[in-house]
Amino acid sequence: MPEIWAKSATEADPEGGPGAAKASVDLHLDLPPGPGTRVRRDLEAALRDAVRTGRLGPGTRLPSSRALAADLGLARNTVAEVYSQLVAEGWLTARTGSGTSVAERRAADLPRGAEPQNLPRPPRSGGTHPPGPPLDLRPGVPDLSAFPAGAWLATARKVLASAPRQLLDYPDPRGLPQLRAVLAGYLARARGVAADPGRIVICAGFAHGLAVTCAALRSAGAATLAVEAYGHQAHRDLAQAQGLRLRPLPVDGSGAVIGDAAGADAALLTPAHQFPLGVTLHPQRRREAARWGGVVIEDDYDGEFRYDRQPVGALQALAPDHVVYAGTASKSLAPTLRLGWLVVPPRLLDAVAAQLTAGPSGLDQLTLAEFIDSGGYDRQIRRARLAYRRRRDRLAAAVARQGRHVTGIAAGLHAVLDVPRVRTERQLITRAAGHGLALQGLESFRAPGAGADRAGLVIGYGRPPEHAYTTALARLCAVLDS
Amino acid sequence: MPEIWAKSATEADPEGGPGAAKASVDLHLDLPPGPGTRVRRDLEAALRDAVRTGRLGPGTRLPSSRALAADLGLARNTVAEVYSQLVAEGWLTARTGSGTSVAERRAADLPRGAEPQNLPRPPRSGGTHPPGPPLDLRPGVPDLSAFPAGAWLATARKVLASAPRQLLDYPDPRGLPQLRAVLAGYLARARGVAADPGRIVICAGFAHGLAVTCAALRSAGAATLAVEAYGHQAHRDLAQAQGLRLRPLPVDGSGAVIGDAAGADAALLTPAHQFPLGVTLHPQRRREAARWGGVVIEDDYDGEFRYDRQPVGALQALAPDHVVYAGTASKSLAPTLRLGWLVVPPRLLDAVAAQLTAGPSGLDQLTLAEFIDSGGYDRQIRRARLAYRRRRDRLAAAVARQGRHVTGIAAGLHAVLDVPRVRTERQLITRAAGHGLALQGLESFRAPGAGADRAGLVIGYGRPPEHAYTTALARLCAVLDS
Repeated sequence: MPEIWAKSATEADPEGGPGAAKASVDLHLDLPPGPGTRVRRDLEAALRDAVRTGRLGPGTRLPSSRALAADLGLARNTVAEVYSQLVAEGWLTARTGSGTSVAERRAADLPRGAEPQNLPRPPRSGGTHPPGPPLDLRPGVPDLSAFPAGAWLATARKVLASAPRQLLDYPDPRGLPQLRAVLAGYLARARGVAADPGRIVICAGFAHGLAVTCAALRSAGAATLAVEAYGHQAHRDLAQAQGLRLRPLPVDGSGAVIGDAAGADAALLTPAHQFPLGVTLHPQRRREAARWGGVVIEDDYDGEFRYDRQPVGALQALAPDHVVYAGTASKSLAPTLRLGWLVVPPRLLDAVAAQLTAGPSGLDQLTLAEFIDSGGYDRQIRRARLAYRRRRDRLAAAVARQGRHVTGIAAGLHAVLDVPRVRTERQLITRAAGHGLALQGLESFRAPGAGADRAGLVIGYGRPPEHAYTTALARLCAVLDS
Repeated sequence: MPEIWAKSATEADPEGGPGAAKASVDLHLDLPPGPGTRVRRDLEAALRDAVRTGRLGPGTRLPSSRALAADLGLARNTVAEVYSQLVAEGWLTARTGSGTSVAERRAADLPRGAEPQNLPRPPRSGGTHPPGPPLDLRPGVPDLSAFPAGAWLATARKVLASAPRQLLDYPDPRGLPQLRAVLAGYLARARGVAADPGRIVICAGFAHGLAVTCAALRSAGAATLAVEAYGHQAHRDLAQAQGLRLRPLPVDGSGAVIGDAAGADAALLTPAHQFPLGVTLHPQRRREAARWGGVVIEDDYDGEFRYDRQPVGALQALAPDHVVYAGTASKSLAPTLRLGWLVVPPRLLDAVAAQLTAGPSGLDQLTLAEFIDSGGYDRQIRRARLAYRRRRDRLAAAVARQGRHVTGIAAGLHAVLDVPRVRTERQLITRAAGHGLALQGLESFRAPGAGADRAGLVIGYGRPPEHAYTTALARLCAVLDS
């Protein structure tokens, strides 16, 4: 592990003197949100690792359990229990009046390579612990362990070795021409987008693309945005922060009900695979949306992952002068890259470009361009598509054995499992948390004022790492069955 | 070179059918701005390379010189001359009525590795050509060839190999805690900033940081921003785009004249090394700025590069509750990375964070954290500081031999060479262009309405690659001497 997972106060606390710097540590741990025991395990592991590798030297005083708990947003008891555990294991020492410190000899006693998890541990108390590490079936994030780290780095190396020096300069705010050219070809081929490098704008992921598009629409006089009755609250918040008022559109079995799009100036749609309900916009509705006349923002968040039928092409191809097409590498590669793209109608291009004060690293842009151009991106998507399709089939089969079924499964990384009432939805989520399984319900995606009342679970089957999927499914079935 | 530097229309033009795709190419070239002959040479080289490597196959029809010229923003004659040159060299063929195409056999005739520049070339016409490749002494960009590509990639590899999978998820919008912790230590140690990880916000370079800060100030009720009489026009434009009205502050031998900061609500200053005049804000003025009461945005764009005296610490340390400190890796590493950071007074933190819809890749953030933490960043800065200091000394010595001197040279990557009149400034810039040397004058940095009238050249001695610096200096002296 790099040195950065835990920082000593020597560097991190400028206001402490030399004594203070020696006396305590400022721990910065990236603890994923989730049920409490995972945080506890992560904290234990990080502290052990810091002592074992010598990053926290013998005698270093740790912050009080109260201070560390406040830092990390944890219960003080959790930190105190971790400290007790590590004292019991001999990594730390506790003395009345001088708090908890790193033990003087424990690290040196351990042979190199001895894993601290081999040490005997006290039995767990009580019955509140889940039967294993917590798992997550909430939608919106792909399997992060599928990120092709080796291929991505090799591509970055190739690009950096061969790129003209000039490409280390400030990048074109609209995106590097090389990436825009490659994307134009890819989007035309893979998604049927009427793309042209001159219409493409590179942005830092979908949320950034949505923010600049909404700001551009607002600056061009738009006041209202139609949104699907179910969708990401974060996206609705972004649009409102740019000054747009929201008008919810009902979603039925044919997708969003377009009509006059609630009289709004623009509309945010997920035509290929409605998020989260999973329905594909019916061809008649697509035509309505294309002819409507207002600006449509087409969120093609998972267009690459279609399993059963011919891929549904982008709505944008029907009305390239009215549709802002938005794509992202967050599902196909990894969200952390913050790489996204817009294909913008010419009349909106300058207004969108005027909003671009940030964007991805030029090196990442070149790496993506080369990754697409060399075929690595397509390979990655084919591999992921197969894996996700298999997971989807296993999910469908597993719930079928209970006489249930999931919908919205022709594409994407999630499925909907309807339940009779919102109350049932909430009960299942609470019950799942007790089983170490994070779930999310339709309620959390409902637009305020949408008047919709469907209840169900939105199951993000793409999220767990491959090795944990079987356990995640088993827990889901146990929760549904209990 | 990766395939991406020139794209065939097969992929880039979705609207052409198979015939159309075969019939023409869509050329995307990253041609750096500069004197015209460089563009011509780059275009020639790119076309030759595309034919030689087979990216443009035999018989492929090129766009008309008119169309390509329009695409690239060039004179049609320039493209026509490049085409003629390549026809003369046998790479292309021209037929009346069917335009210009890739020759059928030329590429195959060349043995692998034969460099096209070895081919006989017609004598150049006229005397307007510079005596070698164009050079650039404009300020604002560091020596891009000094980017530590190998160390950076090795660090990225290390981080990616050891980072928990969770770090590939959507990053914290304020920046990854690991980077904020490491930066807090670095900024306290290297720049005397009163830093705390909780006050740090990671942004996509200085311009992005300035935009979000101005937007946050505007949302908190600020209406006016004081700016130094000389500075980047792009920064003034950004502030105005966020709705702030500008009030210029005079700059004298003690730096910006603070006083009541022209009655503005906030002020944008470059205290360590005024850009572009190069003066350091006098201690008395620093105290005035700290006590003033309005919000100061401290642009510490080159604070790491100080040569002669003790480094001047950040103004922010004097008034951490009034100063937004802004730093960047654009000068220390490379602008393309788009990595910057703000240290924000607590009362402004939420307003600034609310403006963050984009930010750098989490992988880049971790790589920078590890690069700083492992000592690689400090090593890179020490190495660059030595190299830039040597260049500065050579510049000062070279102009001294002509009885001239440069000012503002205690720090940074640029110096000012005063001239008597704006007319002289313009003449020198024009004359330099004729010598294949890009220069920039004070006039282009003057804030509208500033009432300032100093004339001179702002010499960015950090910009040329090491091997070209001697030639750049010689050309500068020739221009000054002629």
